[in-house]
Amino acid sequence: MNQSRINRVIANMQQKGLSQILVTSPPSVYYLTGVWIEPGERMLALLIRDDGTVTLYGNKLFALNGVVQAPLVEYDDIDDCVAILADGIQSGVIGIDRTWPSQFTLRLMDARSDVRPVLGSLPVDEVRMVKDAEELASLRAASKLNDAALKRTLDHLQLGMTEKEVGDFYIQSAKDLGSDVREFGSLVCFGPNCAEPHHANDDTVLQEGDAVICDVGAFVMGSATDEQKRVYEIVEQANAAARAAVRPGLPMKTFDLAARKVIEDAGYGKYFLHRTGHNIGVEVHEYPDCNSTCEVLARPGMVFSIEPGIYLPGKFGVRVEDLVVVTEDGSETLNALSKEFRIIK
Amino acid sequence: MNQSRINRVIANMQQKGLSQILVTSPPSVYYLTGVWIEPGERMLALLIRDDGTVTLYGNKLFALNGVVQAPLVEYDDIDDCVAILADGIQSGVIGIDRTWPSQFTLRLMDARSDVRPVLGSLPVDEVRMVKDAEELASLRAASKLNDAALKRTLDHLQLGMTEKEVGDFYIQSAKDLGSDVREFGSLVCFGPNCAEPHHANDDTVLQEGDAVICDVGAFVMGSATDEQKRVYEIVEQANAAARAAVRPGLPMKTFDLAARKVIEDAGYGKYFLHRTGHNIGVEVHEYPDCNSTCEVLARPGMVFSIEPGIYLPGKFGVRVEDLVVVTEDGSETLNALSKEFRIIK
Repeated sequence: MNQSRINRVIANMQQKGLSQILVTSPPSVYYLTGVWIEPGERMLALLIRDDGTVTLYGNKLFALNGVVQAPLVEYDDIDDCVAILADGIQSGVIGIDRTWPSQFTLRLMDARSDVRPVLGSLPVDEVRMVKDAEELASLRAASKLNDAALKRTLDHLQLGMTEKEVGDFYIQSAKDLGSDVREFGSLVCFGPNCAEPHHANDDTVLQEGDAVICDVGAFVMGSATDEQKRVYEIVEQANAAARAAVRPGLPMKTFDLAARKVIEDAGYGKYFLHRTGHNIGVEVHEYPDCNSTCEVLARPGMVFSIEPGIYLPGKFGVRVEDLVVVTEDGSETLNALSKEFRIIK
Repeated sequence: MNQSRINRVIANMQQKGLSQILVTSPPSVYYLTGVWIEPGERMLALLIRDDGTVTLYGNKLFALNGVVQAPLVEYDDIDDCVAILADGIQSGVIGIDRTWPSQFTLRLMDARSDVRPVLGSLPVDEVRMVKDAEELASLRAASKLNDAALKRTLDHLQLGMTEKEVGDFYIQSAKDLGSDVREFGSLVCFGPNCAEPHHANDDTVLQEGDAVICDVGAFVMGSATDEQKRVYEIVEQANAAARAAVRPGLPMKTFDLAARKVIEDAGYGKYFLHRTGHNIGVEVHEYPDCNSTCEVLARPGMVFSIEPGIYLPGKFGVRVEDLVVVTEDGSETLNALSKEFRIIK
C-alpha cells in the first residue's frame, strides 16, 4: 500500500463529494497497492472510503493473501462476488472506475437499489497524472531503452522484411536491452498502411520508396517523393510547435491546437485524424488526453505524448511522436533519438 | 456480416424479451461482423434490434469504412460518442454486453434517463457457445498445433532454464509451426510456483525434482517424490472422470462435480481451488463455465476445457487439462499429446 498516494486520492474524493469509490483497473490497483493483478473475467475491486478505510476484494485464485497489505476480502468461483462486495458498500452515491466491466456495475445496481453508481475514476486519475520522482526515473529509463531498441531496429531494416518481422525484432531488441514490460506491443507500418493510424502489423513486405512508421519515428525506404518530404516536414513542425507550447498552468488543449494549427495552415487539417497525444505512466494511455477540447491544466510532473500525424488514404502516413514531461517552466523531451527525416538505403 | 449468426442472436433476443442489445466485446463483434477491432479506451458498439437492424458505432481511427459490411456510424475523438449512440437507442430496456467499460453504461444512463440498461450478453453468448463446422475445424487445427509446440518445448526443457525462457520457447515454437494467434500467452511454472494457479512466468530457474506445469501437461524434472506421483494420479483420474461424464443434455455442473468428487474422495478437496473448466472459442474464456453451480445444459458443438488441479502451497501443484467438444453421444478430446506422468531427465 502506498499510503501517500491513497491519502491524495481521498483528498480528491472529499473535494468531489465522493464518500466511496471502487478502484478496479489493474494499473490503478497496482499504483495504489503495489500488486499487479490481472482479474481476467473475475471481479477485482479496491473499495476506498473517505474515512480512510481501504478494502481489496479479489478471487482466491489471485493468491493475494500475504501479498497485498490492504485488508482483503476473498471469494471463490462459486461465491456471488457482487453480493459480497455489496455488503461492504454504504447507501448513496458510489464512484465506479470507468473501465470496470458493466456486468459488475449492473449486478451491483440489482443487488443494492439504494446505491447510485456514478463515474468515479477522477480521484485516482488526477493523482496518477502527476508523476513523482520514482515514476519519472522509470519513464526516463524506459525512453532511453526505447531509443536504443528503435536504433537497433532501424539499423536492421531491409527491403523484403515484413511488418511482423520488424515488429518482432523491435520487441526482441527491447527485451534484450532489459525491458521487463508486461504487455508489449509494436506498431510497424509500410507504405499505404501508414495511412491507417491504428494499423496492426501484418505480412506486408517492405518495398522501395515505402514510408515506414515504427510507432515513434518515420522513415522512407530507398528514395523519397517530394510529397513525402513535405508532409514529414509539416508534421515535424507541428510536433515542435506543440512541444514549444507546453507550460504549466495552460489547458492541455493549447498544445493540441498548436500542433493542429500548423497542419491546418499547411492544408492538411482533414488528414490529422486523432488527438495530439495522451498521458502516459503505468499505462500507455492515461488520463487526460492532449486533444482540442481538454481543459485540464498542465502541471509539473505530468508526462504525455505529442504525436501529431497526417494520413493520406492509399498513399502514406507520417506521425512524429515525442514523450514530454511538464517542468516548472516548460517541458523536457524524454526520448532522444533524432527525428530528422531519414532515407534508408 | 454473418447473417446466420445475427439471425440466431435475434431469435435469442426475442426469446428473452430484449428488443435491443449492444454487442461491444471485440470477440463478439468479430464473431458477428468478421472484423476484429481493438477499441482500446474508445467506444465500440454493435447495436442490434429485434426488427433485424444492425448498426456499428466506431471511432474513425478504427478505419471501418469499406471494411465492415454493417451500417456504420463513425465519430471522432472530440465528438461525444455516447450522445451519438444515445440518439440511436429506443426507450425502455437495453441489453448491455457484460464487458463494456462502465463509463459508457453510466454515461448512457446520464444521457437517456428513459433507457434502462440490463445485462444483455446471453443472446450472443448462447450463439457463440455452440460451434459450427468452420469453428470446430479451427479448434481442431489449433489443438494439433498446440500439441506439436508443447512436444517441442518438452524436448527442449533443461535444468537451469527460467520459466520465461521456456514460455518464450513455447510461443516461438507455436509461431514457427504457423500459429497466427493475436494475443499469445504462455503459463509455465516450476516447483512451488505450480501451487499458484495464476502464476505469471518469472525468472525462476528449473531445478532437480521440480514439478513443471506448461499450462497443459505436468512434469517433474529429475526424480519425483511419491507425493508428486500420487497427486498427479488423482488429478489425472479427476480429469478422466469429468471427460467420461460429458454428454449432451446434462448440466455443465455434472462434469465439474465428477472431477471434484475424485479429488475430494482422495482428501485433497480444499486444494482444488478453481472451476473444472470453461468454454473456449474466439476467446480463451467463453460462456459458460464448467463449475459446480452451472446449470447450462451441454449441447453438441460446445467446446470447453477440463482442467482440474491440486495446489499444495509452498510445495507444488498439478493441473491436467484437456479440450473437449460435446458430440451427439458423448465427447471428443481435441488434444492428443500423452498426459501420462513424465519424469524428464
